[in-house]
Amino acid sequence: MIKKIAGGVCAPKGFRAGGVHCGIRKNKIKKDLALIVSDMRCVAAGVYTTNLVKGAPVVVTRSHLADGYAQAVIVNSGNANTCNADGVEMAEKTCLLASSALSIPAEDIAVGSTGVIGLKFSTDPIEAGMQELISSLSGDEAGSDAAAEAIMTTDTVKKSVSYSFELGGKECRIGAIAKGVGMICPNMATMLGFITTDIAISPAMLQAALSKDVKTSFNMLSVDRDTSTNDTLLILASGLAGNPEITARGKDFTAFCRVLHKVTVALCRMLASDGEGATKLIECRVRGAKTAKDARLAAKAVVCSDLVKTMIFGADANGGRVMCALGYSGAKLDIGKVDVDFRSKAGVLSAYRGGAALEFSEEHAKKVLSEKEIRIEISLGDGKQRATAWGCDLTYDYVKINGDYRT
Amino acid sequence: MIKKIAGGVCAPKGFRAGGVHCGIRKNKIKKDLALIVSDMRCVAAGVYTTNLVKGAPVVVTRSHLADGYAQAVIVNSGNANTCNADGVEMAEKTCLLASSALSIPAEDIAVGSTGVIGLKFSTDPIEAGMQELISSLSGDEAGSDAAAEAIMTTDTVKKSVSYSFELGGKECRIGAIAKGVGMICPNMATMLGFITTDIAISPAMLQAALSKDVKTSFNMLSVDRDTSTNDTLLILASGLAGNPEITARGKDFTAFCRVLHKVTVALCRMLASDGEGATKLIECRVRGAKTAKDARLAAKAVVCSDLVKTMIFGADANGGRVMCALGYSGAKLDIGKVDVDFRSKAGVLSAYRGGAALEFSEEHAKKVLSEKEIRIEISLGDGKQRATAWGCDLTYDYVKINGDYRT
Repeated sequence: MIKKIAGGVCAPKGFRAGGVHCGIRKNKIKKDLALIVSDMRCVAAGVYTTNLVKGAPVVVTRSHLADGYAQAVIVNSGNANTCNADGVEMAEKTCLLASSALSIPAEDIAVGSTGVIGLKFSTDPIEAGMQELISSLSGDEAGSDAAAEAIMTTDTVKKSVSYSFELGGKECRIGAIAKGVGMICPNMATMLGFITTDIAISPAMLQAALSKDVKTSFNMLSVDRDTSTNDTLLILASGLAGNPEITARGKDFTAFCRVLHKVTVALCRMLASDGEGATKLIECRVRGAKTAKDARLAAKAVVCSDLVKTMIFGADANGGRVMCALGYSGAKLDIGKVDVDFRSKAGVLSAYRGGAALEFSEEHAKKVLSEKEIRIEISLGDGKQRATAWGCDLTYDYVKINGDYRT
Repeated sequence: MIKKIAGGVCAPKGFRAGGVHCGIRKNKIKKDLALIVSDMRCVAAGVYTTNLVKGAPVVVTRSHLADGYAQAVIVNSGNANTCNADGVEMAEKTCLLASSALSIPAEDIAVGSTGVIGLKFSTDPIEAGMQELISSLSGDEAGSDAAAEAIMTTDTVKKSVSYSFELGGKECRIGAIAKGVGMICPNMATMLGFITTDIAISPAMLQAALSKDVKTSFNMLSVDRDTSTNDTLLILASGLAGNPEITARGKDFTAFCRVLHKVTVALCRMLASDGEGATKLIECRVRGAKTAKDARLAAKAVVCSDLVKTMIFGADANGGRVMCALGYSGAKLDIGKVDVDFRSKAGVLSAYRGGAALEFSEEHAKKVLSEKEIRIEISLGDGKQRATAWGCDLTYDYVKINGDYRT
């Protein structure tokens, strides 16, 4: 029984969160510093960007989490602290500031930064705002929301989700916040995502669950095919739910993986829906692939195609662009077996059968593609594997936002 | 001595070309059918899309050129003849119609189509317009221009280039036309490119020259990272220049490859400049790479990045996006050694040195990036290999054009 509950990252037992404006951003009404803290040391796991240009916080967080434990996460927006000569020093100093204020060893603190790359980073505003940040901490949804707001950059809505579920007869909880709507083509994780849970689990199994999950969640998400320098997805498990500790694969691990995937897919859909300039969520479901990898390649190529994205923006039923993307996706496929449908609340539009275009009513097509959420359903007719990818349309506003991002 | 000359594909000895409106397009003022024909059977070579979804004309042309010879090329715009159940039959029929009219065996005729994918194709307009097409043939620049116009889709200007050069004491000529400004990320060749020359060369050496060339020309070009289903680059060599036939590698082959590269690079720059909605040409030059492949990966990732493209559109000097693209390019590189400059007619803007961001004058940056042609110069400081890639900015008009392409 997986049940949606309130609370975001504060839903699981033992977590508080908060967020304030400390001055990294000039705009005073936008929060720019977030903190998530657990009452006790947590089992922790992370996945990070595969970009060779890595933000300094990625380097520091990876090192602090190497032992499989952490207790707090401090995150700023407005500056990515990437490509700065003293970046690692600044990220370590940020951890030290949080460490003193929270009386937690700096090695148990994770740090994240998001914003402009190559902008000189100062910890002065963080130092000045630390007391207010600590005071802002609360264990309810308001605390989680403040943190979710403080990590936003071009995001237009905060992303948060939480569920309760059962493990070994105990009620457990999982919650998450995330941000990232541009420079999004995670190749390990999205820009920034933080998940909390109160289950008891070993560091190795928590890392295994997270690493496996991202293959079919964040790694299947794209706004603009630009894999960020700062992608970080962290999970902290407090153990306060009292379930028998998960130390190996088995029923409980599988049950936890299932709820974790519900959380990560929900975040992916929120991130894609709020993609920079986006007016529509695109979900591409591929079935009938020979291998899971073929299914993933095919689905991701479709949501990544600028031509598919602009066509969805224009509600123009140009199914040939989906065929084209499938053709260069790298997936093994027999074009003569490919079916393509577009589906939305307004109905289904069958576009291709056996690799050949079907005739259709333009009026019906316009109706189907004018909805807010468009599903592209593809059958490769060549096996049993499936995959789903998420993206968004490409619009005038994406160009506007990114033509002048820094100002 | 390579000299720019007039004539396009009609510049080399033995070639005529023409173009008419035959009715494949509804718009009567837009030509939609082109023909290039040689007085004699030519040595011919081609490179084609790697997309698994291949236009029917690609299949037919590849088969007709399998013997290394061809004499004419017939091309329509307005319909890609791709994903049609009877596509190959229609493409063969198009060759037969040209065959009867020209008294040339159908097997020596190449065929190309460009336009909407998955649109029913009829040869009726081609049959009806054939006599007018034959009458339109001429051996001067007007003929080449008519053909160049007839193959345009969303292109706003026709692309044509021609040079004279010397081989074995004989004056030789090479000319070319091309089209393609969207669905452009050739992985063999651009949408459509046709090159003529009057040199004498064996089929094997002509194919070798072309196949090698595209690695550093068309394969380094991207408008939107969508590898088309119909990419075709053909070269016909009439042999009328009277040079000693090139049958092996050597001085003459190298000299020919050099002039061929001048032609293909000129076409790439024209195609990128006219990229759908583009206001600026982006040329990315990478040097100091360990291997040529690393240099190519790095250069292409930069011109492909939507974030780099929108930044150039907005003349916003966000060099971090170049660093980000380098980081996920797949090229082996040591970020600490990377330098990045932006160069245009208005001057140079040094953005990164040794992987760290430099401070700069916003006013100067705006001036440099507001020019029509922006060169991004990258030094990886890690070897001696170089590569150049071409792209264009991503603008409101790209979205507009592709949000409603079919109507």
